[in-house]
Amino acid sequence: MLFMVEMDVNIPRDFDADEAARLKAAEKARFQELQAAGTWRHIWRVVGHYANVSVFDVESNAQLHDLLTSLPLYPFMTMRVTALCRHPSSLHDDDR
Amino acid sequence: MLFMVEMDVNIPRDFDADEAARLKAAEKARFQELQAAGTWRHIWRVVGHYANVSVFDVESNAQLHDLLTSLPLYPFMTMRVTALCRHPSSLHDDDR
Amino acid sequence: MLFMVEMDVNIPRDFDADEAARLKAAEKARFQELQAAGTWRHIWRVVGHYANVSVFDVESNAQLHDLLTSLPLYPFMTMRVTALCRHPSSLHDDDR
Amino acid sequence: MLFMVEMDVNIPRDFDADEAARLKAAEKARFQELQAAGTWRHIWRVVGHYANVSVFDVESNAQLHDLLTSLPLYPFMTMRVTALCRHPSSLHDDDR
Amino acid sequence: MLFMVEMDVNIPRDFDADEAARLKAAEKARFQELQAAGTWRHIWRVVGHYANVSVFDVESNAQLHDLLTSLPLYPFMTMRVTALCRHPSSLHDDDR
Amino acid sequence: MLFMVEMDVNIPRDFDADEAARLKAAEKARFQELQAAGTWRHIWRVVGHYANVSVFDVESNAQLHDLLTSLPLYPFMTMRVTALCRHPSSLHDDDR
Amino acid sequence: MLFMVEMDVNIPRDFDADEAARLKAAEKARFQELQAAGTWRHIWRVVGHYANVSVFDVESNAQLHDLLTSLPLYPFMTMRVTALCRHPSSLHDDDR
Amino acid sequence: MLFMVEMDVNIPRDFDADEAARLKAAEKARFQELQAAGTWRHIWRVVGHYANVSVFDVESNAQLHDLLTSLPLYPFMTMRVTALCRHPSSLHDDDR
Amino acid sequence: MLFMVEMDVNIPRDFDADEAARLKAAEKARFQELQAAGTWRHIWRVVGHYANVSVFDVESNAQLHDLLTSLPLYPFMTMRVTALCRHPSSLHDDDR
Amino acid sequence: MLFMVEMDVNIPRDFDADEAARLKAAEKARFQELQAAGTWRHIWRVVGHYANVSVFDVESNAQLHDLLTSLPLYPFMTMRVTALCRHPSSLHDDDR
Repeated sequence: MLFMVEMDVNIPRDFDADEAARLKAAEKARFQELQAAGTWRHIWRVVGHYANVSVFDVESNAQLHDLLTSLPLYPFMTMRVTALCRHPSSLHDDDR
Repeated sequence: MLFMVEMDVNIPRDFDADEAARLKAAEKARFQELQAAGTWRHIWRVVGHYANVSVFDVESNAQLHDLLTSLPLYPFMTMRVTALCRHPSSLHDDDR
Repeated sequence: MLFMVEMDVNIPRDFDADEAARLKAAEKARFQELQAAGTWRHIWRVVGHYANVSVFDVESNAQLHDLLTSLPLYPFMTMRVTALCRHPSSLHDDDR
Repeated sequence: MLFMVEMDVNIPRDFDADEAARLKAAEKARFQELQAAGTWRHIWRVVGHYANVSVFDVESNAQLHDLLTSLPLYPFMTMRVTALCRHPSSLHDDDR
Repeated sequence: MLFMVEMDVNIPRDFDADEAARLKAAEKARFQELQAAGTWRHIWRVVGHYANVSVFDVESNAQLHDLLTSLPLYPFMTMRVTALCRHPSSLHDDDR
Repeated sequence: MLFMVEMDVNIPRDFDADEAARLKAAEKARFQELQAAGTWRHIWRVVGHYANVSVFDVESNAQLHDLLTSLPLYPFMTMRVTALCRHPSSLHDDDR
Repeated sequence: MLFMVEMDVNIPRDFDADEAARLKAAEKARFQELQAAGTWRHIWRVVGHYANVSVFDVESNAQLHDLLTSLPLYPFMTMRVTALCRHPSSLHDDDR
Repeated sequence: MLFMVEMDVNIPRDFDADEAARLKAAEKARFQELQAAGTWRHIWRVVGHYANVSVFDVESNAQLHDLLTSLPLYPFMTMRVTALCRHPSSLHDDDR
Repeated sequence: MLFMVEMDVNIPRDFDADEAARLKAAEKARFQELQAAGTWRHIWRVVGHYANVSVFDVESNAQLHDLLTSLPLYPFMTMRVTALCRHPSSLHDDDR
Repeated sequence: MLFMVEMDVNIPRDFDADEAARLKAAEKARFQELQAAGTWRHIWRVVGHYANVSVFDVESNAQLHDLLTSLPLYPFMTMRVTALCRHPSSLHDDDR
């Protein structure tokens, strides 16, 4: 089941730099784990912003909630969640 | 070069039904042509709306403009265009 | 899987009264069918508005999309869809 | 008498962790007390947010005001209050 | 139980003048009936607008909903409903 | 001359508690003085918010400005001011 | 007593041209009458818009309401009304 | 050349009181200098707010920019700038 | 003197096609005349929209107002006008 | 390929003055380097604001993203990015 999640990241300027680096590394590791699992299907940078547009493929709303709220950078993120579904005119059977 | 385009479609209730059907068929044909060409890379329905979220891969802004404004249903669409780029943490070389 | 759907209904004043009555009866029948099936779990009127707040329990995003867009009054509705999930502090195992 | 209350919770990152834990426990206890009493009839998490959608069944506006503003986490909450009433097409006599 | 209701009235320029006059007279009669009953406690014009700010004193949300949606000019009104309650510092026991 | 003033109060969590108590007491005394004088004609709590809806009856815009900006809690308030006037259909000669 | 009124004028393209010309002439005559009386103290065009920013000097809110709602072009106008008062640092005793 | 400038002033509660007094005095002196020169033609207080509506008469956009950004309170102000021009129906040749 | 003007064009679907073609040709001719005169210094299409971003270099606000409101397509345009000035870091003396 | 970027700069009052001066000098140097290279084609001040409207000519979205996010003042900027393309009626072949 597909959801678009738009994430804006805002780490305060005065936040500890080492802790920020640690969180970003943890975020990247977690992202790649979920990407490899096929759960975090797509991610793109938004030009000019510390932000991304992502598409998730999950079993349930609850799984998506747990996944998003446990991201290492979650406390610094603002999120917009949009429920998607497959488009009837799509040619690709696996277009998720 | 990647762009997210969010399209809301609003065909007035009193619009001629045959013409609407003709335009929708033309839209579908054009969409599948662009999808086959790799230009219209992704499309998803937005749940509960006559709307979609799409990702385009184009050569230039001008190509995207020509492509969008010549869609058969363009006169009935409201569009939001967002410039994207590849995310540095993506594992897939071809994640576009 | 739970979703809140907020629906505003706006039937133009000059819309044919008989057709409006027919659509409202069809809407009510469909609503009660879905309510009996446990899919349309809750509905409340919003005070002072021709609008409701509803909670749906569906198998997938696609089922919700099909269900909402096939409602008899759908062409006259504006919808806001919000993905929900069970709250961890809820005492009722079946609070859906 | 029914009201939808949408609550967003925002506890600052630098707030004392022990005090936060104490307030969350107090909030949970108060919530379950009101849930058992039938006053806080429904609560759902909003996916991706530290937020909930709730439905209250109260005797009066004043009771709702006292109840909301005395919640342990109230100082960290933003609320939207919407007056609801029973929908005439509902099949369940006790759908509150 | 008190509610503030802000009403904007918008009768289309091309609406039949006689019917508009009839509806306005019916609205005024209904308003004065509810005012005499103590239900429609206050009404003020908003300067420069065909709009009013009103305060209602009702038994329940359902009564307010029925009352508002049966106003003769209701189809031409946009409403904002805000739940109020007595202020603890008020000197007047009957300030409603 | 009548004005609706909607006041939201926001005292920061880290503001000195004694000073806050002193300001609230001063605000209450000033409010009751103006209420007794007939200037602050109405006040209602907004359910779920540290906010009120008030109606003032003043001689001039300048009097209202001086009165509002000298309230003890003014530095913590956000205000929306709306000019009102008597409604022609009101039955009460003194409905102010 | 001073008020800023921002007026946007929107006459539909299909409105009768002769009637529009008649209303504009009536509007201009009324405006100049009020300007000569010192009631409509200032008016400026907003660049690029069929709109103006005006300052009125009136005896009461009720006078302003009657004056604005009886303007010949009132049915085609959207208005924003802001209560003003003399600034304490102004050097001109008659800056109104 | 005329511009409306709407200025909201927001000096933080914890800002040094002496420095604030010094800046306000400098602002007043600068304002009166520009008022005497005919550049800052009008200023009005907005009722209930630490804000003003002003009209400037300048030689160029650049002069207005330099003038506004060098105001002593500029770092505490939010501004909205609107280009104006003389209204064709104005009776006063010098209505600026 | 420089202004950015953002123009959205919206010609109704049912507008006479010949008249629309005539207006567009007149608009283009007028645009090129002003472009040749150096008054309409820049114009760019906004991707995906029937809209443009333009920069004008005019003698006065009044000249800009007359110029914009006399454009052949003006009745179909929504405009946002922003006053600009030369940036102090620009290397080009004639960057207008 | 052309993009309009609108940048608002907001350096906190309590930010170190020397560091701010250093960042502004670095920003100016970087801006002039990009201006000389033809990448940062235009920049204008927005009157009354610490803000600019710029036009960039880049090879790709990714180049624009790298360029914007590496600006010395980027952490203090809010940006709006709009994809542009050449206007078909432009007389200048090099209007970029």
